[in-house]
Amino acid sequence: MAIKQAIVAQALPLIKAGMVVGFGGGTTVGELVRQAANHVNDITVVTPSPTTRQLATVLGYTVISPAYCDRIDIAFDGCDQLDHHGNALKSGGGIHTAEKIIASLADEYWLLTVKDRLVDQFDPQTPLVLEVLPTAFALVMQTVSDLGGQATVRTAANRDGFTLSDQGNLLIDCHFPTYEHLSALNQELVATAGVVETSYFDRLVTNAILGDADHQQVTTLF
Amino acid sequence: MAIKQAIVAQALPLIKAGMVVGFGGGTTVGELVRQAANHVNDITVVTPSPTTRQLATVLGYTVISPAYCDRIDIAFDGCDQLDHHGNALKSGGGIHTAEKIIASLADEYWLLTVKDRLVDQFDPQTPLVLEVLPTAFALVMQTVSDLGGQATVRTAANRDGFTLSDQGNLLIDCHFPTYEHLSALNQELVATAGVVETSYFDRLVTNAILGDADHQQVTTLF
Amino acid sequence: MAIKQAIVAQALPLIKAGMVVGFGGGTTVGELVRQAANHVNDITVVTPSPTTRQLATVLGYTVISPAYCDRIDIAFDGCDQLDHHGNALKSGGGIHTAEKIIASLADEYWLLTVKDRLVDQFDPQTPLVLEVLPTAFALVMQTVSDLGGQATVRTAANRDGFTLSDQGNLLIDCHFPTYEHLSALNQELVATAGVVETSYFDRLVTNAILGDADHQQVTTLF
Amino acid sequence: MAIKQAIVAQALPLIKAGMVVGFGGGTTVGELVRQAANHVNDITVVTPSPTTRQLATVLGYTVISPAYCDRIDIAFDGCDQLDHHGNALKSGGGIHTAEKIIASLADEYWLLTVKDRLVDQFDPQTPLVLEVLPTAFALVMQTVSDLGGQATVRTAANRDGFTLSDQGNLLIDCHFPTYEHLSALNQELVATAGVVETSYFDRLVTNAILGDADHQQVTTLF
Repeated sequence: MAIKQAIVAQALPLIKAGMVVGFGGGTTVGELVRQAANHVNDITVVTPSPTTRQLATVLGYTVISPAYCDRIDIAFDGCDQLDHHGNALKSGGGIHTAEKIIASLADEYWLLTVKDRLVDQFDPQTPLVLEVLPTAFALVMQTVSDLGGQATVRTAANRDGFTLSDQGNLLIDCHFPTYEHLSALNQELVATAGVVETSYFDRLVTNAILGDADHQQVTTLF
Repeated sequence: MAIKQAIVAQALPLIKAGMVVGFGGGTTVGELVRQAANHVNDITVVTPSPTTRQLATVLGYTVISPAYCDRIDIAFDGCDQLDHHGNALKSGGGIHTAEKIIASLADEYWLLTVKDRLVDQFDPQTPLVLEVLPTAFALVMQTVSDLGGQATVRTAANRDGFTLSDQGNLLIDCHFPTYEHLSALNQELVATAGVVETSYFDRLVTNAILGDADHQQVTTLF
Repeated sequence: MAIKQAIVAQALPLIKAGMVVGFGGGTTVGELVRQAANHVNDITVVTPSPTTRQLATVLGYTVISPAYCDRIDIAFDGCDQLDHHGNALKSGGGIHTAEKIIASLADEYWLLTVKDRLVDQFDPQTPLVLEVLPTAFALVMQTVSDLGGQATVRTAANRDGFTLSDQGNLLIDCHFPTYEHLSALNQELVATAGVVETSYFDRLVTNAILGDADHQQVTTLF
Repeated sequence: MAIKQAIVAQALPLIKAGMVVGFGGGTTVGELVRQAANHVNDITVVTPSPTTRQLATVLGYTVISPAYCDRIDIAFDGCDQLDHHGNALKSGGGIHTAEKIIASLADEYWLLTVKDRLVDQFDPQTPLVLEVLPTAFALVMQTVSDLGGQATVRTAANRDGFTLSDQGNLLIDCHFPTYEHLSALNQELVATAGVVETSYFDRLVTNAILGDADHQQVTTLF
């Protein structure tokens, strides 16, 4: 809890009046959104997260779509894992496509996370998530298997059918025995017909704020 | 368990070679699909349920889309509640829009369910579910409230955001104090901009097979 | 041309600082958007029209989605036909679903049009347009025919396939021999499974500004 | 006209009873679909083309979705341009995403076209078409421009707004001064967030039947 506050305290001064600011999902970014409401009041918000969108709307921010947004000054997000080269895996939330659009538009893309998530090599326990057009279901299941992975399509808990992304697509969790050649693997998956976007962020991260709960310390990376 | 088998045994002979057959969601219909595979092998299947679709595909049925299907000979489905006038509430599965399309195309629309679900008046504990275009979120929440109801949008358990229908729409569960004037209430909701379909089936049920687990009896209704 | 300017001149003072304003499609509303940019600069815009949206964005307006918009102070739109009871047919643009959502949210819904479009009874030459889920294609074609109408699905000029709405649905133009019982006809169509919205606006119009090019006069209706 | 018949005559014997066959769009493939109806009657059809789908349905074929189709024995399609390495540009129809899914699933992917479309190097007059998520509009327009191209979003002729793909996405035509490094260019575009699929088919073509109208000759390539 406390470490989140420290991370947020570090991020807050980066937000300046008049900026277009991207806020991703997760509780740390949520806390930043809440505190920013007291810190500056004339920013415009873009967000990939339906949860953050509702929060920002309630807090009175102007929320616009990235569709007509030519420039984002700074964007904040969480992640599952991050390496020292600015790569990240953002797998849980199922909104990685919109996150990547916003990361790509942003001048600075900051990850706010705990220090343990900074790794030398990505852990294959964290799945690579694919957003996939429904018509490509059979093709992608087969392709992942051919590439040595195990693919599981996310199934909805409170309806009959699959969990769908905001674009109406499937979310397929892929487990591979190793992430040693993740960049190449990712490229093959991206090139597969019907794969909209993977949850691997290839050198998109420009900065990070890492919290160390044990030592109550916050470090800035990059 | 046993009563489901008895319901399925009653339904099975209704399926004849060459028919286009609709199979909805749920375990009873699922069992019917499994047994039908041994009973007739040249039927064509349409289904509103992603789960049933996968099952039917694995069993080797030809599954077609209702989009180009001019006629369905017979369709089977489950329900939450059913009354004596052929009305039904089909709220849980979140696939009521596709179910209604298939029910409307079908010459005969049979509900397979347990006897307790046959009611004189619908129980307001079962929500009326609305499939709603995302852009109509604010309008529909407000309209339901104006009509005296409590609306809750379904939220996904395994992604950030809402549970979406196969058409990429929201599912909004509405609780009203009473269903006394359900048909009129339903009409007002259907007429609300952005409401795609409600889970109230207005005189669409042509037949029902009701199982009574206590007396191990199966009755046919209508 | 000149009459459009006169209509716009009448509409302009209705827009006040701080308002949430809906702007529909069409050239008259487009001209209003352009002039409003000089008239007030702190309004927030919602729009059903991709064309107007681009224009408003270029002009520097803040454009928000109706999804999280609880209230629209005033909305302006065009129409194909309008009667004396506040009913309208809005058929050409294919964006009637979003227009209806915005009309329903708006405290005042103003139509800006030429006087000839005010009719005693709607002319069946103007089609009733249905936005329809792709899976309901066969059902709706059949239903319209059963109701005595002729249905034609809009086909894209610059791709293989159908013209799709912003929600990815079909647009089906329906011609009926008469619109004598349009309200009842409309209700039957709305109740058809898979019909998202019709282009008939049932008593949604609160005001209108009508231009008479021959007499260079502008009248306010209602 | 005559040359199309000759192409079709060459393709017809490749279709054998019991096969799952992919049929793309265009008039040549359409003619093949028509003639195949007399040639074999127990094939199952998958198609990326709404036009071909309607035709195949009317002709009585069983049409299934590629979503649950593990294997396609053979697929036929047209193209805008084709080179000697099995690469193709398929830009006009706006259904290249579904075409690519089917091409990827197919054991054999045959292009049926006229000889002039076989080129040594692709002609930049034929645009590279991107299917793009609506939320990525600004990002992709900017990215294409950064890569030296000119991007134009397809606009609907018979509605207010953009031409949308069957997945509800934008179609963006890109003109580049040269296609000298098309494969690399294509990879950069595919890697752009929100680009679903490009119209460049990278070594997906396994065979081609080329008609030469001048010499009334048909050649098989590969």
